[in-house]
Amino acid sequence: MRIGAIEAGGTKFICGIGNDKGEILDRISFPTEAPEQTLEQAVAFFGDKGVEAIGIGSFGPINLDRSNPAYGRVTTTPKPGWAGFDFVGYMKRFFPVPVGFDTDVNAAVFGEAKWGAAKGLDSCVYYTIGTGVGVGVYAEGKLVHGLVHPEGGHILTRRHPEDNFIGACPFHGDCLEGMASGPAIEKRWGVKGSELPGDHKAWEMEAYYLAQALSGVILLLSPKKVILGGGVMHQKQLFPFVRKEVARNLNGYVASPAILDDMDNYIVPPGLGDNAGLCGALALGIEASSASA
Amino acid sequence: MRIGAIEAGGTKFICGIGNDKGEILDRISFPTEAPEQTLEQAVAFFGDKGVEAIGIGSFGPINLDRSNPAYGRVTTTPKPGWAGFDFVGYMKRFFPVPVGFDTDVNAAVFGEAKWGAAKGLDSCVYYTIGTGVGVGVYAEGKLVHGLVHPEGGHILTRRHPEDNFIGACPFHGDCLEGMASGPAIEKRWGVKGSELPGDHKAWEMEAYYLAQALSGVILLLSPKKVILGGGVMHQKQLFPFVRKEVARNLNGYVASPAILDDMDNYIVPPGLGDNAGLCGALALGIEASSASA
Ligand SMILES: Nc1ncnc2c1ncn2[C@@H]1O[C@H](COP(=O)(O)OP(=O)(O)O)[C@@H](O)[C@H]1O
Ligand SMILES: Nc1ncnc2c1ncn2[C@@H]1O[C@H](COP(=O)(O)OP(=O)(O)O)[C@@H](O)[C@H]1O
Ligand SMILES: [Zn+2]
Ligand SMILES: [Zn+2]
Repeated sequence: MRIGAIEAGGTKFICGIGNDKGEILDRISFPTEAPEQTLEQAVAFFGDKGVEAIGIGSFGPINLDRSNPAYGRVTTTPKPGWAGFDFVGYMKRFFPVPVGFDTDVNAAVFGEAKWGAAKGLDSCVYYTIGTGVGVGVYAEGKLVHGLVHPEGGHILTRRHPEDNFIGACPFHGDCLEGMASGPAIEKRWGVKGSELPGDHKAWEMEAYYLAQALSGVILLLSPKKVILGGGVMHQKQLFPFVRKEVARNLNGYVASPAILDDMDNYIVPPGLGDNAGLCGALALGIEASSASA
Repeated sequence: MRIGAIEAGGTKFICGIGNDKGEILDRISFPTEAPEQTLEQAVAFFGDKGVEAIGIGSFGPINLDRSNPAYGRVTTTPKPGWAGFDFVGYMKRFFPVPVGFDTDVNAAVFGEAKWGAAKGLDSCVYYTIGTGVGVGVYAEGKLVHGLVHPEGGHILTRRHPEDNFIGACPFHGDCLEGMASGPAIEKRWGVKGSELPGDHKAWEMEAYYLAQALSGVILLLSPKKVILGGGVMHQKQLFPFVRKEVARNLNGYVASPAILDDMDNYIVPPGLGDNAGLCGALALGIEASSASA
């Protein structure tokens, strides 16, 4: 079985060929430009490799409502040429195979549930803390969409008492993304996060905001695993800070041993590392293939 | 088909006999006392009515993990006699029929999705704003449990700028329940909510807190309907306040016509009114019956 996988990021595309064991056999990466320009490289890569299905984990927002004629399209992005672009339709024109399509973070959470840190579990959430803050939700063995798809990066925050930063989100100012994304860190402290020392005040503050989102999602859904990925989470010292802060917020309320006694194995980095997104796209392709069988 | 339904509240039990159309044919109500004392009344009521299944929507926290020997029990309540009580086991001893068991709010959301305000939809959330604040979550056609079950009444809040109330939650102080439950309103203003005039400042403040929870859940799950029930929501003037505040929080972010253009039909009271809980228990009984068939 050969499946095509596309991790469609806002700045970078990664395409891969994988199998149903979650192994990536070949891959390529290129910058995200206008849709046709970008996708013709994907088409060339998959070319005559005989893919039986394609899975796409895409930057958003995207239309995932199968009853809507706009299903498979990118919706309102400011990225030139992409607003309204028919992503699934374009790929199907070249490859008349089943195409799985979801958000990049739903793909990641799906990949993690299949082969990664949440392997074998029927629920988990995946946050990416990078240029933006995104969330993928897997509950009761299903990817959650609802009316649109999870956009939990934009929840309200309770301000850290020592934080005067106005916030970087153009929609909400000091929402989670506005306070905790990579660009927010850079604006608040005047240097990129990667250049701040590991013991800088910034990380305790970052954990304070991330823990708010995590406490909220744990109270609402009590997912069986909480996975934090994305560029900012390369700062591994964030994990113990976040765990401590979540425990403080919950104050014993969600009475599960996994949370009360084993937080180190509950809030974790992606088991698939930086492959979570691409493996997730592969998992979407596999699912599309079996759904059409 | 005759199904037994139990709405097990912390202060009051309601038992009913219903059919698979969601009709309640007979009912009884009595105060919640010690488990045996309370349940013998339920047993007497169902007596020889020939119930083919029983559905229970219970106050919590409760154990819903079928792989756990403690499945079907109430867990850590301070209510005398109930901590650790085997609710499902007790009923099964008298009625050897399939028993459906879930939280009172998961029952309510399930009933609303089957026969109420979310009829025919595959996702919705139900908040009850009463003595406590509880949430039931239905997503992708399934009741969500995760490790435990939704406890989203205890999320952190962003304090209203004019609110100095310390909060009424013994676990978290100023969490949502601590700021917005019936008892919180009473402690803050010195009188019961039902005695405050409809144009009192209290209601705008109440809406401010409820809208935080709703914005969060809409961003995270974009449910197809948001239902607000419970005693406090008898103050119908809260609905327009809550809708306005949610729109302000989201600021256009969740781009669905249901939210952008039709909020009046999106954030709504229970379609089943004060029957949501009992009908929900009935729906759980029906589901248990068909799952065992
Ligand atoms: N080691 C690091 N420490 C802190 N921040 C980092 C680190 N590496 C990347 N970042 C930040 O993460 C963001 C990029 O996130 P990433 O997940 O790599 O990409 P994207 O979100 O664009 O897909 C940038 O804002 C960058 O400053
Ligand atoms: N009309 C009303 N206006 C405001 N608050 C009310 C009203 N009716 C009941 N409440 C409050 O709601 C709470 C009871 O909630 P209810 O949903 O009826 O029961 P419970 O949560 O115990 O199952 C009490 O704190 C009460 O003060
Ligand atoms: Zn935002
Ligand atoms: Zn609380």
